Amino acid sequence: MSDLGPNFSSRPVLRINLKAIKANYKAIQSLVGKTTHVAAAVKADAYGLGAERVGRTLYGAGCRNFFVATAGEGKILRGSIGDNASIYVLNGPAPRDLTLYFGSNLKPVINSLVQARIWAEAASAAKHPPYSAIHIDTGINRLGFPMDELERLSKNKNLQEQLQFDLIMSHLACAPDKDNPANAAQLKAFRMAAAKLPLKPMSLTNTAGTYLGKPYHFQMVRPGIGLYGGISTTDPSQEKITPAVSLMAPVLQVKTLKAGESLGYNATFTATKDTKIAIVGAGYADGIPISASSNSDGYFGHATLQNKRAPILGRVSMDLTALDITHLKKTPRIGDWAEFLGGNLEEDAKSCQTLNYEMLTRLSSRARREYL
Amino acid sequence: MSDLGPNFSSRPVLRINLKAIKANYKAIQSLVGKTTHVAAAVKADAYGLGAERVGRTLYGAGCRNFFVATAGEGKILRGSIGDNASIYVLNGPAPRDLTLYFGSNLKPVINSLVQARIWAEAASAAKHPPYSAIHIDTGINRLGFPMDELERLSKNKNLQEQLQFDLIMSHLACAPDKDNPANAAQLKAFRMAAAKLPLKPMSLTNTAGTYLGKPYHFQMVRPGIGLYGGISTTDPSQEKITPAVSLMAPVLQVKTLKAGESLGYNATFTATKDTKIAIVGAGYADGIPISASSNSDGYFGHATLQNKRAPILGRVSMDLTALDITHLKKTPRIGDWAEFLGGNLEEDAKSCQTLNYEMLTRLSSRARREYL
Repeated sequence: MSDLGPNFSSRPVLRINLKAIKANYKAIQSLVGKTTHVAAAVKADAYGLGAERVGRTLYGAGCRNFFVATAGEGKILRGSIGDNASIYVLNGPAPRDLTLYFGSNLKPVINSLVQARIWAEAASAAKHPPYSAIHIDTGINRLGFPMDELERLSKNKNLQEQLQFDLIMSHLACAPDKDNPANAAQLKAFRMAAAKLPLKPMSLTNTAGTYLGKPYHFQMVRPGIGLYGGISTTDPSQEKITPAVSLMAPVLQVKTLKAGESLGYNATFTATKDTKIAIVGAGYADGIPISASSNSDGYFGHATLQNKRAPILGRVSMDLTALDITHLKKTPRIGDWAEFLGGNLEEDAKSCQTLNYEMLTRLSSRARREYL
Repeated sequence: MSDLGPNFSSRPVLRINLKAIKANYKAIQSLVGKTTHVAAAVKADAYGLGAERVGRTLYGAGCRNFFVATAGEGKILRGSIGDNASIYVLNGPAPRDLTLYFGSNLKPVINSLVQARIWAEAASAAKHPPYSAIHIDTGINRLGFPMDELERLSKNKNLQEQLQFDLIMSHLACAPDKDNPANAAQLKAFRMAAAKLPLKPMSLTNTAGTYLGKPYHFQMVRPGIGLYGGISTTDPSQEKITPAVSLMAPVLQVKTLKAGESLGYNATFTATKDTKIAIVGAGYADGIPISASSNSDGYFGHATLQNKRAPILGRVSMDLTALDITHLKKTPRIGDWAEFLGGNLEEDAKSCQTLNYEMLTRLSSRARREYL
């Protein structure tokens, strides 16, 4: 069986480079300097990469403040990183989640007066309630105190006392684009709004915002995508980011399409000449979007095999993808690996009409996680 | 707090209607008649709905043949449904997976001579090896024996003996389109190819293929999407399918955009008039695609609130989505549920430029599974 590669499984592998994640953390820490703490957004299971392992890695790199979306995510993270770090829950307190907050010492991000009252009531009844954060909406119009509600909070010293917040934060809408005047407008609004509250550490930016310069950093920045090797701004040259994720799919079969033969569902690809293909064991259920399929206008997504591009042919299937390997010098063996994402994350996202963020978060749990 | 709804969590909920899945199984069984067994494709974690619970439900409905993609999936399913059913592994045997096949009594689908040799060698050394299936490629040009390899298998009685296959199968490329001549061509090719092998039960079709009529059914059909409430053909009127999945997201905050204000990342939506919005706790990390975002041409995706459509405004975020609720009679309370997917699965998929299959498989594990 000379066509059979090394000992392999038909299960795809998600290769996650923890050293790269650590290096990306250090790079952002260098960028913002020692007086600004680099927190980490590890919500959505650390953008699909595994919040427990990623959380421990970042803790090892010096991170002591983490952001998750839900209290359930916070509980899992707490179990992994231990007690010596803050975990903030961005989506804010909800009645059914309160036991999670107290049980795992999670800090709720308070986004509204309704959430403030939920938390104030619960915290008043507790002996040592966790601190909280106040999130001010300075223009993204997503979660966060609108200005009128912030006014009411600023006048209600009793409520402020009950909330015991240790951080005032906001979130930028247009940070990837340095020249967008919305950034300066949000910065100004944030300063003015925070001034209505008692003096606390402040935090405004995600990864992209760290590149907007010192005035945006305050006491804490909260990168996510940059830690995971994703480019976040319109000027990649300024970003010292190391790719951290590859989806590896084993070659399951090699065959030759004769000119005129079609391939895959709805026969969306027809060979114009004899074409050698590899069927690899990963599909859209693993995170290779259907939008990476080829169509009559040409190729879209691709994988890397033998350090060469292997374009996707036909429609990506749920568990399988067909690659054009006609141009490779050696026919791949069964069990050889085709690499998706990796250093091509941004290009892949673009060709799939989406963002690197979504390419990461949609990686499924079927692939075996392999941490380097 | 009159604006606060019932006891709620900020975690989204995936509501899976097992009764609907059972009803869909029965409907397909009625369609194909009693002489054809209805197997179930439960690969990719039962299209994202949870293979263990779904598998047990289908077993309870009478299903005794299941199809998964990888041996790892097979092992999990075996633990859930017990020993009295066949589990076929579509991606075929790989050296590192062999212990899983023998340990969990999984039947490999043999797609090529290479896979035949891998399995023959392993099975010969085992005392009671599982049976296998032979998968013939009749035109989809994905996995499966090409005709030249099938010829060689047909002449190698010794190899056939070692494989001990109990099923001969193939897979249709264009089944959704009744009038596509590729269907009849594959049917004919399948009959001719199978005739080269010893007489065994045969299986050709997925959900869509069951609507092509009796000649396509053979001894076994293998629906997937139809079980999970998805429409599979270009003629929905013929399909008696009950929706089975809703993604429920809690309302976390309600606010009003003034005319001229923008919303979300890159400010892709700007209100032309005062607009009431609800920020709900689910985003693309939960399976609401970024492609469901609104753009300057109009709305794309939507949710259902108070039995009315609530269009998505601006770009879907990782953990959050903004909905237009200006037209609702009552302002939703915090903690009220917005429903995604449900009866709108196909329409949603279309508006997101994808397929109902991908809408299901990309549902993440962050949402709490609630089985009805």
